[in-house]
Parts: sequence; structure tokens; C-alpha cells
Amino acid sequence: MKHVHGGNIYTYRNCMDFSANCNPLGTPESVKQAVRDSLDRTGDYPQVGYAPLREALGEYEDMDPRHIICGNGAAELIFSLCQAVRPKKALIPVPTFAEYEQALTSVGCQVEHVLLREEDGFCMQESFIDWLHGDLDMVFLCNPNNPTGILTDREFLFHVLRRCRELGILLVVDECFLDFVKEPGKYSLKAQLSRYHNLFILKAFTKRYAMAGIRLGYGLSENEELLEKMAQVTQPWNISVMAEMAGIAALKENAYVEKGRKTIFEEAPCLKKGLEELGFTVYPSEANYIFFRGEPGLFEKGIRNGVIIRDCSNYPGLTEGFYRVAVRTHQENERLLEALKKGLEGE
Amino acid sequence: MKHVHGGNIYTYRNCMDFSANCNPLGTPESVKQAVRDSLDRTGDYPQVGYAPLREALGEYEDMDPRHIICGNGAAELIFSLCQAVRPKKALIPVPTFAEYEQALTSVGCQVEHVLLREEDGFCMQESFIDWLHGDLDMVFLCNPNNPTGILTDREFLFHVLRRCRELGILLVVDECFLDFVKEPGKYSLKAQLSRYHNLFILKAFTKRYAMAGIRLGYGLSENEELLEKMAQVTQPWNISVMAEMAGIAALKENAYVEKGRKTIFEEAPCLKKGLEELGFTVYPSEANYIFFRGEPGLFEKGIRNGVIIRDCSNYPGLTEGFYRVAVRTHQENERLLEALKKGLEGE
Repeated sequence: MKHVHGGNIYTYRNCMDFSANCNPLGTPESVKQAVRDSLDRTGDYPQVGYAPLREALGEYEDMDPRHIICGNGAAELIFSLCQAVRPKKALIPVPTFAEYEQALTSVGCQVEHVLLREEDGFCMQESFIDWLHGDLDMVFLCNPNNPTGILTDREFLFHVLRRCRELGILLVVDECFLDFVKEPGKYSLKAQLSRYHNLFILKAFTKRYAMAGIRLGYGLSENEELLEKMAQVTQPWNISVMAEMAGIAALKENAYVEKGRKTIFEEAPCLKKGLEELGFTVYPSEANYIFFRGEPGLFEKGIRNGVIIRDCSNYPGLTEGFYRVAVRTHQENERLLEALKKGLEGE
Repeated sequence: MKHVHGGNIYTYRNCMDFSANCNPLGTPESVKQAVRDSLDRTGDYPQVGYAPLREALGEYEDMDPRHIICGNGAAELIFSLCQAVRPKKALIPVPTFAEYEQALTSVGCQVEHVLLREEDGFCMQESFIDWLHGDLDMVFLCNPNNPTGILTDREFLFHVLRRCRELGILLVVDECFLDFVKEPGKYSLKAQLSRYHNLFILKAFTKRYAMAGIRLGYGLSENEELLEKMAQVTQPWNISVMAEMAGIAALKENAYVEKGRKTIFEEAPCLKKGLEELGFTVYPSEANYIFFRGEPGLFEKGIRNGVIIRDCSNYPGLTEGFYRVAVRTHQENERLLEALKKGLEGE
């Protein structure tokens, strides 16, 4: 399987990118300044164990820094999780973020899929529980899910978490996009970490602070043995000096994150309405991106009119005609709608 | 095994660091500028496959870009090599760079050691060949070796390489410090890559351009199946936008590298002489660092006098009293000698 992703701004230069989903306000100036300030230290090796970043994250997350692990982007942690656990069998609902399966198969794991069906609005069904069995080593869940933006109810996740513990399954919940839903606290499993050592939560700086190019993500778990194994399969200097400084600066940007959230909450309904008016079937995403069904060929029509949207046809469980777009600023979203309209009109 | 390394400037602040071995001239200004220029793109995901960097490296190394793989530092590649190959048994000479064994054991590999003996001046002996056997999957060699700085003759490496091919062993040669020996061309195995698909060569930007904090290394091999497997076990965005831009800028810095080499060639004999005058046994390192034997406790004496040296007692195959110091600028080396002298005098 080849890596196929959104954010391919390198092939389609001069297009506005709606295929990657980050904070619509762009990287905060303080984060860029932290990178500039780190230039005195480019010649130094990063600090093994990145204690200052871990401390800052501990404060931000109100967690013991020992229960935090950082990665060169959350994507690195998906791979190091799989390399640490070496699962034989794993379960993922589909469609979902492609890297879970990529990382699982890279360690020879057999992957079982539960199809989230269009007729169910791509929502997780109660019957998911029945798919859990004692031969499974790992389950990946993304909440809200990517690419659909559909949230899974916490009561149901509690149920999954308990059942996974009974069966000895590690549950990895990817909460990378949870910062952009209205009430993250109602969906996060963070409060369960202390009682469930079979739980690992993925988080990213990438989306929250629009710093995808800097590479920084983190994971939370109170399973110290797992964290130790992950460290063992990872080089000691995986966090660059720049990423560490950028991360520490980013964690102070609460007002900026709040402003980004406000922009999304204001703009998402507008953009959904606009997409519906173009004749698309829009699913009720609660994240900072919108998932919809339209006609085949819309990706190319977008490119011709200067916008990159995410063609989701290569997601397992989806077919041609499914797309995802990021919620950006009002003006940008208007441009997206106009470009798609022109495309549909044959321009 | 815990990660224990040089470069621990974070514990011993305000000390001058001789424990990490980079170009004594520091990060070139053009590399820092490239990072500054990349700040427009911090919000973008890195380009999957980093084609522009690979192109630039292809030109620099006079290799097909398809035969180049980049890592978040060369250290990441050591781990992805082991994760791709999943060796059952491997052989390393000791003492050598600790990450080979760390990466090997992290995938459950059994590691055999060949002791490079003090009475042989820590030189690789002809008998090394006899240690190769059909059950081995991988051999790691570092040339010049770290921490000793001892070079291994290319004729002998040819012999090892051929024997490894006969036995189906992957030979990984770490040439990260080869840029700083007088005639790298006489020792590199690069010309053998096209004929030996059981060969992988490790290279780093870290040392050549003093950019350890930015994280960028690369590997060369014409074993396309191996490179593909390494890509499979690695996240698609492992090279940050900043590292890619920094790397492209660095590759143009030939005059700077030459100046760094000249500094080392001028200063190394001076520093060796100074260390001998302090009563230490200095081994004939041909790299940008010097390995010597002194009395136990010298590390602490250095710290008390403002310099960090590498205590090598935790290297397998070494005992208390072995040390490594980087060759830096004349003034800095003088300060090192003075600090050690003071330390010996009980200050």
C-alpha cells in the first residue's frame, strides 16, 4: 500500500489547500518566534527525554509528565505503538485514518475491519462490541473520526474500553481532532487513563496549532510498561530542538486556540449549507472538516479552479464520490464554494 | 538498557561541550536562514518522499535519488533498518556506537560481539572474518569507529562485504564521521553499492554541518526492496519542513565543510600532543574526535572546570578511564587542555 494523503500542495502548487485539516488561523507567531530563537541551538543534540516539553505538557494536560510520550508528529507514535506491541490481530472501523492500518501491517499484523455504513450515517453502531474478541491485541478508534467527522458517544466508548480490558486488548483512541469539537470534555477518555491501563490516547500539535511542518505529537497513557517499550523502539533524539521549543511556546496559546475554535463553529454551518446548495449530501461532521458525497471527478474540477479537496475514494470502505474539506476562514470557504460551483458548471 | 550518550549539555549547563562531535565551525548561516525561510510553511505537511531533498542529495552523492532514504537523523534509520529486516542474529564489534545494539535488541535480535582489544590498538583484526557465519542476518560496522576514531582499511572491508554476501548477511557501514578523515574516498564503500545489494551506508548531516538539533540523516543502498521495507515501517512525514529546507541549503556548503576539515586536521595533532603531555594514552584517531585513556574520575574533574568530555566507561568492551573528546577550534581545545590540567591538579 502506498502512502496516499491529503495536503498534497506539492503537486498542485498555487491551489488553496482544503485537504489538510489544521487550525484555520495558521501557525501562531509565538511558535514561529520560538523556532527562530532555537536557531542558537541547531548545533546541539536535542535533550533525550525532552523534560522541559514534557513538563509543559504535564501542566497543560494536568497529567504526570511520566505518562506523556512525544513523537515526531502523532504519526510516529502510531508506528512506535505497533512496533512496541507487535500485535498479531487488530481491529479498526473503516473508513478511518489510513496510518493505523499502514502501521499495523508493517509489523505483520492481521487487520480486521468493521464497516461504518453510509446508511448508518457512518456512525459507530452498538454491534461494534460484538466484533471484539479475545484474539485481538489492539483496536484503533478515531474520535471524531477522520474523514467523516462523526463523534462517538462517550458512554459507548466506556463500554468498548471495559470490554477491551476484559479481553486484554489495547485500545488506542486518536483524539487529534477533538480540540475542534464543541465540547471536547464530553468525549475525551482522558479521565479513564488512571483506571484503564489498556488505554492510549493520541494527541497532536499539528492540528491544534497548525504546525504540521514542525512535526510534534504526543500520547497519554498510564501504562508505564507500554511507554517504556515505545521508548525502546524509538531513537533517543526523535524530537528536534525546534519542535521542542515550538511546542513549549504553542502550549501558551490558549486564546489563539479558542479563536480558531470560534472560527470553525461560526463557519462550519455556513460551509455545510453552501455544499448542500451545490447538491452534495453532507454528513453531520462535528470536527473542523466536512465530509460529503458528490459526483465522481470533483477533485479534478476543484484543481482546475484552484482548490485542493480530499478525494476519499481510496479509503477502505468508501467509493468514488466521497470528499472531505477543511473548514477555513469565511473568505477562504467562500472561495472553495465558488471554485466547486464553477467546476460543476463545467469550467 | 538506558540511552546514555554524549552531548548532555542539559545537565551541565555553562560547560563547554567536547562530548558531541560535530563540525567545529557550528551550523552554517545559510542553514539557519533556510530554517527561517521555512517558517512560511510551518502549517503545511512535509512533502511525502521529500523529492527536492532527495534530488539534491542525488546530485551531491552522484547517486540515483531512488537509492537514497532520509531519516529524522541517521539514528532513525538505524531503528528503521532493524524494524525492516527484523534480524534474529547480528554481529557488532565493540566498543562502538550504542544505538546499533539498542535498535537490534528492540526488535528481539540476539547480538554477538567481537571485542576490539586495547592491545590491538582497538583495530579491527583479520580474524573478524572468522566471526561471520550463516546464522547472522546483519553486521554493523562504524568507519571510522566511534568512540575510537580508528579507521578500517578498505581492502579488508571488501573482504567482509564479499563474505557477508556469500552468507546472506546485510552489512551496514556507518560512514557518518568519514567526512572528517583526510581521505574519505579511500575508505568509503560507496562505489560498491551497485554491485553489493547487501550493503547499506549511513550518512548524517548532523556532523558534517553541525546541525544535530535539526535532525537529518540519510542512507544509501541499491537494495530497493530493503528501502521499500524501511519506508513501510516509517511514518510518511518523518522529515520536517525545516529539516528538508535546511538539508538542501547545507548541501551547497562545500567551502564550509572544507574549512571545518582543515580546522580539524590542523588542531587534532595539537590536541593529541596536549593530551599526551597530561599523561594520557592517546589512540591514533583519524576522526574529528580523540579517544584516550586516563585516570578514573576525569569526567567529573572536567565538569568542575567547565568542560564536558565523553566518559566511555559505559561502552560494552570498555572500562573506567576511557574518554573521548571532540576536536574543536584552537582556542576551545586550549581551554579543554587547561581545564583537564586544573582537574588533574586537584582544582
